[in-house]
Amino acid sequence: MKPSHYPLDEPIAAIATALAPAALGVIRTSGTGSIELVSKIFSRPDRLVRAEGNTVVHGWLVNGEEKIDEVLASVFRAPKSFTGEDSVELSVHGGPAAVLSVFRLLLSAGFREAERGEFTFRAFAHGKTDLARAEAVREIIGAHTDTARAHAVNRLAGGLSGEVAAITARIVRSLAAIEVEIEYPEDEETTAGAFDSQGIQEARDRLARLESSWASEKLLQEGVMIVLAGRTNAGKSSLFNTLLKEERSIVSDIHGTTRDWIESNADFLGIPVRMYDTAGLRETGDEIEAEGVQRSRRLLSRCDLVLYVVDGTEGIQEQDRTFLAESAQNAPPVILVWNKADSEKKAALPDAQELPGVRAIHETSAKTGEGISCLVSSAVSIVTGGLQTTSRHDISLGTERQKNAVHDALHALDHALGAATAGYPVDALCQDLEDALSFLGQITGEVTSSDILDAVFSGFCVGK
Amino acid sequence: MKPSHYPLDEPIAAIATALAPAALGVIRTSGTGSIELVSKIFSRPDRLVRAEGNTVVHGWLVNGEEKIDEVLASVFRAPKSFTGEDSVELSVHGGPAAVLSVFRLLLSAGFREAERGEFTFRAFAHGKTDLARAEAVREIIGAHTDTARAHAVNRLAGGLSGEVAAITARIVRSLAAIEVEIEYPEDEETTAGAFDSQGIQEARDRLARLESSWASEKLLQEGVMIVLAGRTNAGKSSLFNTLLKEERSIVSDIHGTTRDWIESNADFLGIPVRMYDTAGLRETGDEIEAEGVQRSRRLLSRCDLVLYVVDGTEGIQEQDRTFLAESAQNAPPVILVWNKADSEKKAALPDAQELPGVRAIHETSAKTGEGISCLVSSAVSIVTGGLQTTSRHDISLGTERQKNAVHDALHALDHALGAATAGYPVDALCQDLEDALSFLGQITGEVTSSDILDAVFSGFCVGK
Repeated sequence: MKPSHYPLDEPIAAIATALAPAALGVIRTSGTGSIELVSKIFSRPDRLVRAEGNTVVHGWLVNGEEKIDEVLASVFRAPKSFTGEDSVELSVHGGPAAVLSVFRLLLSAGFREAERGEFTFRAFAHGKTDLARAEAVREIIGAHTDTARAHAVNRLAGGLSGEVAAITARIVRSLAAIEVEIEYPEDEETTAGAFDSQGIQEARDRLARLESSWASEKLLQEGVMIVLAGRTNAGKSSLFNTLLKEERSIVSDIHGTTRDWIESNADFLGIPVRMYDTAGLRETGDEIEAEGVQRSRRLLSRCDLVLYVVDGTEGIQEQDRTFLAESAQNAPPVILVWNKADSEKKAALPDAQELPGVRAIHETSAKTGEGISCLVSSAVSIVTGGLQTTSRHDISLGTERQKNAVHDALHALDHALGAATAGYPVDALCQDLEDALSFLGQITGEVTSSDILDAVFSGFCVGK
Repeated sequence: MKPSHYPLDEPIAAIATALAPAALGVIRTSGTGSIELVSKIFSRPDRLVRAEGNTVVHGWLVNGEEKIDEVLASVFRAPKSFTGEDSVELSVHGGPAAVLSVFRLLLSAGFREAERGEFTFRAFAHGKTDLARAEAVREIIGAHTDTARAHAVNRLAGGLSGEVAAITARIVRSLAAIEVEIEYPEDEETTAGAFDSQGIQEARDRLARLESSWASEKLLQEGVMIVLAGRTNAGKSSLFNTLLKEERSIVSDIHGTTRDWIESNADFLGIPVRMYDTAGLRETGDEIEAEGVQRSRRLLSRCDLVLYVVDGTEGIQEQDRTFLAESAQNAPPVILVWNKADSEKKAALPDAQELPGVRAIHETSAKTGEGISCLVSSAVSIVTGGLQTTSRHDISLGTERQKNAVHDALHALDHALGAATAGYPVDALCQDLEDALSFLGQITGEVTSSDILDAVFSGFCVGK
């Protein structure tokens, strides 16, 4: 079903926690009669039906005589709930079998399985949230680093919606002034003086700031891919582990087979990094090993940055030169990592000029940690392409959809400003300002269409 | 820290839901002052501190000025909580970053990270649950099939604890009768008449029934490993998919690399099955393929049952005979699956006598589903070794620990019965009955030692 067609008030249920072994699982319900429906399969039906909103009732879910699970049922009464409807949240024992058995029981009791984003859609439809804040919830759930999460929480707390409202208010004031002027003109010849150029320019600049926030926010959400390469024994694996230890991400490792690569998540100054430790690049007679090397090369061609590790006690060898020369032609930027800087023995550092693919050279020691934080800063600076990353408290856009709406509003204001400069009559400018307001209204959902609703809510997970 | 040394009442916190992207996550806290501690980082501190037990307060968790997440805080007041202590459960936005940011905030506010099973340990220490029911919670969380879950829920509901209490009462009554007889003997010569042989025999039989339940319960918890083997194009993969479709398990698939094997979970009449579809067993010149075949063979030597698939339109070939002859010597039992039974063309069924490793032959069609349920029943009967599997409502033991206690109690009663038959004085029997009671007390935790507590609670996950 398309989100724009989601019916309201029908009793729906969804598993809201991850389906994996854990102490607890939560199943959400919402809709007219949801409290009564749960009471039919609850060991203390009267207690549940009479429960006040925002209270928790302990009991058993039962299927006839059979006890299915011991649960806590949190009762919420319209309009004081997430969706604005009557709702019961069931805290059940965790683990897939336990959670699914309760869920099946709820379906048999008359609940329908909720669609993606249907709970949040109802919250929006009942005026409990706006679209930008609804999208922020999805961004919080998907955040890979604490910085990404903090930005999304700022939007959930209304940071973006407030900024859009302030810009909207500024435009509305200008538009109202023009409309008064048209209605009661003081000077029949021209009403150009009624156009609040300064106000519109200010609104325009604020929109431009918002628009420019999207590039770095997108990076924060999607992250980058960094590959460690180098000859066998250059110290790739220990550097990999040092980078992970220093900048450990919140998401756990995925180990590929060692002959291909090891993949892990790191947090480089807030930017989520998928980091790959590839097989050594030596030529080999072993077919299986050769297959691994092939895959490593494919990975190298797809990534955003290569950290090419050289054993600093030995210096650059012929094989390194070959790799770097190849990279320079078709590949992502390379940082040359001059590893084992802690050692007494040191080969001469190469001249960066003679290594065309290399964007920077960093001396590091995976052993002592020397040079690691510099390497991370340098990597971030290269993958962001010098983008100004916003601080945790700055207001930023959270979705492509929001960015497009801001872009369109900005375009409309620019058009109005150009028309005013060209001396067009002010009533011609009204349409531009109204267009801008309409685009801004899409961000929070004051202006919606089924296309907008479908785009927003179909990206949600079930249970949200 | 060893569970037996867990201190009570200290404020502890743990993430109670699986740490993966999901709509919601739950963080549990417990301990004296836990409500006040949470209030320090809550946007509505007074509201939280004054909240009655079993109520839900909406608000934001804050770190100074920074909003960390919008949450629902469920307040529980001692002794009406899971642990018997004051407690707050925080329902936060799901996703690792969101859940971890709240968790870190709680630790900085003064909570200690909970140890494995520490919440349940406190529930036990405060008399809110017994050991058998505590263990049942762990079994519910780890259940792989609905049948395994139903058995554990029966124990959580007190099925096992009740049965143990009934057996205990029977022994206590017999012991009391003996003690009265010793105190006030009617017949100075012998007090053998005071020994309630019938009652002890009945208690003994009930214990024997419990003890015998463990073998099939263990199978339900641990599951079995079944491998599909056969020549390429015998129809292994379609049979694999048919078996999964018919008997789909609740746990999602793990796909290995196709050249090795595909692994999935199925539910065969309640028994969790890890099922492997191996690479075809043809000899090959391709090294990588050969490696896969090698791994398949290792898998075959470790499994509980092999389903050897033959294309029934072609019949048994030389290569099949070789495989089956090898299996007969060193390997698990084999069911010969005579596949493609829907086809017009049919090879002659072999004589089971001439295939020594084969325990059964089943004609099936992955296409029409013919013969599949028979195959499943036959597989279950072979892997259970004819064990009587208990019904969903039977009382069964849940852990090796419980089984050992039952075994020891049974042994003590047998000793008493033997001694009575041999005409020993009844006071010699008292010690046996007291031993039996002590062993039974270990099951629910009326009799405990630090060893028992450590064994029970160290097997738990954090957050439970």
